[in-house]
Amino acid sequence: MGTSDSNSAIDAAAIRAAHARIAADIRRTPLWRLAGAALGVPCAEVWLKLEQLQISGSFKARGMFNRLRSVAALGALPAAGVAIASGGNAGIAAATAARALGVRCEVFVPELTTAAKRERLAALGAQVVVGGAAYVDALAACERRQRETGALAMHAYDQCEVVAGAGTLMLEIEEDAGLPDRVLVSVGGGGLVAGIAAWCAGRARVEALEPVRAPTLHAARAAGAPVDVEVSGLAADALGARRIGTIAWPITHAYVAAAHLVDDDAIAAAQRRMWRELRLAVEPAAALPLAALWGGVVQPAARERVAVIVCGANFDAASLAG
Amino acid sequence: MGTSDSNSAIDAAAIRAAHARIAADIRRTPLWRLAGAALGVPCAEVWLKLEQLQISGSFKARGMFNRLRSVAALGALPAAGVAIASGGNAGIAAATAARALGVRCEVFVPELTTAAKRERLAALGAQVVVGGAAYVDALAACERRQRETGALAMHAYDQCEVVAGAGTLMLEIEEDAGLPDRVLVSVGGGGLVAGIAAWCAGRARVEALEPVRAPTLHAARAAGAPVDVEVSGLAADALGARRIGTIAWPITHAYVAAAHLVDDDAIAAAQRRMWRELRLAVEPAAALPLAALWGGVVQPAARERVAVIVCGANFDAASLAG
Repeated sequence: MGTSDSNSAIDAAAIRAAHARIAADIRRTPLWRLAGAALGVPCAEVWLKLEQLQISGSFKARGMFNRLRSVAALGALPAAGVAIASGGNAGIAAATAARALGVRCEVFVPELTTAAKRERLAALGAQVVVGGAAYVDALAACERRQRETGALAMHAYDQCEVVAGAGTLMLEIEEDAGLPDRVLVSVGGGGLVAGIAAWCAGRARVEALEPVRAPTLHAARAAGAPVDVEVSGLAADALGARRIGTIAWPITHAYVAAAHLVDDDAIAAAQRRMWRELRLAVEPAAALPLAALWGGVVQPAARERVAVIVCGANFDAASLAG
Repeated sequence: MGTSDSNSAIDAAAIRAAHARIAADIRRTPLWRLAGAALGVPCAEVWLKLEQLQISGSFKARGMFNRLRSVAALGALPAAGVAIASGGNAGIAAATAARALGVRCEVFVPELTTAAKRERLAALGAQVVVGGAAYVDALAACERRQRETGALAMHAYDQCEVVAGAGTLMLEIEEDAGLPDRVLVSVGGGGLVAGIAAWCAGRARVEALEPVRAPTLHAARAAGAPVDVEVSGLAADALGARRIGTIAWPITHAYVAAAHLVDDDAIAAAQRRMWRELRLAVEPAAALPLAALWGGVVQPAARERVAVIVCGANFDAASLAG
């Protein structure tokens, strides 16, 4: 399973090591195999990796635990603990991991972060610091603090341990069911798609889904290098990175077969349909792969087994009402 | 797997036959195996059967498809179609099954059934008939119609095919992971617990959970026979049968080790906690087993693997807000 030769630091061996390192911390989430017809998708099978059930409510816990456990194993956790800039899933995951290891955690959030999210971070024991109007301001404040206190920097997607941790999700899929023909995954900063692509290393067709209004990978592919994009829209809280990560970019360049755009209406409709027909309560970012299948943006062949990553559920369930 | 000798008409062979009969109709739902510690339960493993993801949003689809497919295989489906009295999951499941087989379906509901539920039934193609003030009135109206038109009677829990269909859920658990030490399941009319108990036939400890305000099995065990109870409370829409079924009663008498009561506050708290910590959006009726484990009503030994049936998710997700 996996290949051991790779030109990337994030290879199958690194992902296997990450999985062993975090096995006791994370939940092994279910892989739900359905006939395509049961989902209204004209392919043989759809495999739903129910990663929204992961501890912290998203796949981000895998990377954050891998980062913390890796540094802790080196005896290098600073007394000041860890610091991260995030108003979303990465912050919740970092706070969850830090609490599990008994480490202090500061989360720098932009002003527009809702009171509900700040309260959730505080309930996880994190120190919540409002770091300015926008995410970039929160990031700058976080970096200042890291320099002042020596706190360990945690990045939402652009650290090796974070990408390798995300890749453990694909290792589990292969252990559970073998390799699918195709994997569909949402992209923000690219940590998850890179981890998956690094594990598959060309052995399965990995395709990226991005919101029309947060097209980091698209823009990078068009420009031939990571570039900044404007981000907005329904899934921006989870997929609203400004540019694809420096670690993710070359891996996606080598191993991601296609990047597709999905508009907000299709995302919202798929999110509602996942609740109505499947009783899966998920955040908008987790609805892109099925939106692409239901909308015909991705058209698998009849014989294909397609893996869909259901990546998170940190949202207000009231939005599913009715 | 299973035993072939049994004193009940609902035995392992009947359940195995039911599973083969409905395999193409239903979803094989995930069995999510977690360390007990991951859930805050002091036992070795908790296995969550995520049956709230079943087609129609509850386990009831298994029994309704088995009933319809069995009768259809005998060439005995009447032109008038099927009729059922239900304001809840059984009605939705019957309508789902009838639509799949292209059969007419009438659902008799009491007046208090919400507009949302009536609309959902209508959207499934069912004729919705308001049959009086209370469930018993709807049932009487349904029975009159069956006599008039020759429509096939579908019962929410007290038919052999319905009980055998429900038991297929336990067959899947055993196929996926072997037998657990203990199975925890919510009880209303008893169709699900009876199917599970019939499959296990004493090979695993099956325990029933009932709301304090809908104690059909408790009352039957105290009286030594099925008796009517008053029903109310949070989970009454799903577990609000007035008495334990005539098919379920002897099976539970033989094979259900204990019946426990859970109060509405504990049910509501467990439902919220399942969303907050596990991102499982479930109806109150599905929260009783974890309510019993979290509240200490059921105290498994440290070495035990405990299966928990998460039985449905037909509820307004807005109730999870905040």
